[in-house]
Amino acid sequence: MSLIEDLKWRHAVKAYDSTKKVSQEDLNKILEAARLAPTSSGLQPFRVIVVENQELKEKMVQGALNPEVMKDCSQVLVFAAWDSYSDAKIDKVYDHHTDVRDLPRGRFGSYTDQIKELYNGQTKEEHFAHTARQTYIALGLAMAQAAELKIDSTPAEGFSNEVVDEMLGLKELGLRSVTLLYLGYRDLEKDYLSHMKKVRIPMEEFIIRK
Amino acid sequence: MSLIEDLKWRHAVKAYDSTKKVSQEDLNKILEAARLAPTSSGLQPFRVIVVENQELKEKMVQGALNPEVMKDCSQVLVFAAWDSYSDAKIDKVYDHHTDVRDLPRGRFGSYTDQIKELYNGQTKEEHFAHTARQTYIALGLAMAQAAELKIDSTPAEGFSNEVVDEMLGLKELGLRSVTLLYLGYRDLEKDYLSHMKKVRIPMEEFIIRK
Repeated sequence: MSLIEDLKWRHAVKAYDSTKKVSQEDLNKILEAARLAPTSSGLQPFRVIVVENQELKEKMVQGALNPEVMKDCSQVLVFAAWDSYSDAKIDKVYDHHTDVRDLPRGRFGSYTDQIKELYNGQTKEEHFAHTARQTYIALGLAMAQAAELKIDSTPAEGFSNEVVDEMLGLKELGLRSVTLLYLGYRDLEKDYLSHMKKVRIPMEEFIIRK
Repeated sequence: MSLIEDLKWRHAVKAYDSTKKVSQEDLNKILEAARLAPTSSGLQPFRVIVVENQELKEKMVQGALNPEVMKDCSQVLVFAAWDSYSDAKIDKVYDHHTDVRDLPRGRFGSYTDQIKELYNGQTKEEHFAHTARQTYIALGLAMAQAAELKIDSTPAEGFSNEVVDEMLGLKELGLRSVTLLYLGYRDLEKDYLSHMKKVRIPMEEFIIRK
């Protein structure tokens, strides 16, 4: 199947079959797609927290718009972005780049100096606005990978960041939750969207040609 | 090829062969993947501007970090987000949803009332922070679709939003540019990244299991 067919197949499932679990093998492919996501300057300024523990999932529903979806899905992925950039974080990523590529450390120094200067001139809130945006690239690719495997998913922004950050100890890790992605298999009876046509605005309205 | 193989194949190309053009058929597939991108409440709060005109491309390089890449690529896609939400915009999308699904208009009224209330309590800057995030989902899927077709792409945030918005008349359309995506075919000699290993942080560092 092509990506386009996969995207047509998927929708944001509103009810999961709680008896069906996504296998670790499939889960790892979804995580791998998120890990391979391109990000600004290749910094990958976010992490993905995999929540499989049922008790923890049920605790996280506090403040969530769709608590039943969170409870019944197989896994919850939490996309959590760096709360800020720093010289040390940038160096760590680029030291890894040069090590993997058998290049001397500092080989990309003129570039990293440039991005350090950029970020040092910004506030922490500006940093987070930027790191949070990057998580959406990975979120999209994780959904596409799930669809390729005929695994359902539901992206969610409607939850309490405070509850999730606190519950998962994200602050101590320098992370802030941005989005959730529920994974699992749809409950065909309860998921009303399964029986509705997919809707997108027409191409001629979506695209502007110059 | 699977999505994971496509993502491993791609990288942010730094030099394009200006003699090779992406066909309209392939371009349309890339745009279709962007159009099918899931977005918050299905509002698709952004548009994609396709810039193929060489003169316009060359004018847009002003303030861009990689002017040669913009000049030599085949097409520039501009992902531009709504500058704000409004009741009228939300109604327009949901009227389309109900029309396509043969449902009475207003069928999703309780839901749209809820999101209108949410956005009416926010500033325009908060709206744009949210609409801009959504564009990254489509940006990621457009890159994945390009890779499936073995078309190169380069995402870019390093450009002058003012120049691009002005040049394309985006303000008048209620849009603000967020990212660019250059499309084309790599210049194997000049694109130094073509010869380097792809680097991502190790899975055990990227994922936190709970």
